[in-house]
Amino acid sequence: MAAFLRQGKKIVAIGRNYADHVKELNNAIPKEPFFFLKPTSSYLPSGGQVLIPRGITAHHEVELGLVIGKPGRDIAPADAHAHIAGYALAVDMTARNLQDEVKRKGLPWSAVKGFDTFTPVSAFVPAAAVRDAQNLALWLKINGALRQSGNTQDMIFAIPRLVAHISSIMTLEEGDLVLTGTPSGIGRIHAGDEIECGLDDPATGKELARLQFG
Amino acid sequence: MAAFLRQGKKIVAIGRNYADHVKELNNAIPKEPFFFLKPTSSYLPSGGQVLIPRGITAHHEVELGLVIGKPGRDIAPADAHAHIAGYALAVDMTARNLQDEVKRKGLPWSAVKGFDTFTPVSAFVPAAAVRDAQNLALWLKINGALRQSGNTQDMIFAIPRLVAHISSIMTLEEGDLVLTGTPSGIGRIHAGDEIECGLDDPATGKELARLQFG
Ligand SMILES: [Mg+2]
Ligand SMILES: [Mg+2]
Ligand SMILES: [Mg+2]
Repeated sequence: MAAFLRQGKKIVAIGRNYADHVKELNNAIPKEPFFFLKPTSSYLPSGGQVLIPRGITAHHEVELGLVIGKPGRDIAPADAHAHIAGYALAVDMTARNLQDEVKRKGLPWSAVKGFDTFTPVSAFVPAAAVRDAQNLALWLKINGALRQSGNTQDMIFAIPRLVAHISSIMTLEEGDLVLTGTPSGIGRIHAGDEIECGLDDPATGKELARLQFG
Repeated sequence: MAAFLRQGKKIVAIGRNYADHVKELNNAIPKEPFFFLKPTSSYLPSGGQVLIPRGITAHHEVELGLVIGKPGRDIAPADAHAHIAGYALAVDMTARNLQDEVKRKGLPWSAVKGFDTFTPVSAFVPAAAVRDAQNLALWLKINGALRQSGNTQDMIFAIPRLVAHISSIMTLEEGDLVLTGTPSGIGRIHAGDEIECGLDDPATGKELARLQFG
């Protein structure tokens, strides 16, 4: 599934899954997971250039991505990891000013999350290289300054619950990417900024993935 | 692009594009088009069985689908038809009770539109078989009783404008399906109902597509 960028059909992105991020946007802690879809046409491989349309306030949200390796519907939490071929580090770029507007109007989120280049993503990390996906450090720097720094152990809903919830509604297919939510520290990206993100195993200090874009 | 069902990566669905339907749901006439994404895992080929989850009020919305044949970004309205390989008749099934809730809360629409089997779709109709896509009759019957009957000439935003709008945000790719909105008459489908839909050329009386599901 190293080819998920080319072959995957959907990106399912979880919202509000870290308590400190929920607070920074003045939202309520969700009682169950919720998600939105991003188009795979929004992928930006590491090293690329994010395109911020005129009039858009573009925010970064660094997130752990799950790459689905085995299709499934109604996946039990205990079986979730058998469906995950590996991981990727991704940024869920968001047109925050438009999102504020559609939330107020009760309109869909697809456009505000779906612009071309709005899902920068790292290379594939095989599951075998990851000791514990629920204890990974993820961070994001803009022009060298640390802006986001979290750990996947702080998710409100853990990975097995996310996979079970999504697959209770729609079949997860080979190559689909699940974005698992962002820790706090989200903020604006301006044209010309250099963004660098990393996914590390805090137990070993090993870097698992690195993602850079301009 | 007869293989769009298997090969297509996204379904982009326009909301509120027929004035009589906008009124029946007490919404305002939009000033510009808006859309949401449905996953391709929601396709149900004609002859299949729609699965209505427990507790869900499932509504039918019969719609003309545009099958993209040539990829493009920022497509000019005058070029839109060059990107359309053909058409399909589809039903945008909607969990209306959940949609009312997410609209109230400002949450995404992806789940309420994205259940497996929530996009029944006909066979592919090549563009060459269609004289004027902006003058097609579309209808839906439940157990033999006519529930929806509209004409694509009543769209608020015509096909070239829809293709231009979507592609100003995200690249349209080969095999993508654009759903163009539903005329009035939407309503509930119950388990055991037999649904039949048709797409006709009113100028010739010719049937272009037929879609049935249970
Ligand atoms: Mg949405
Ligand atoms: Mg996010
Ligand atoms: Mg619809």
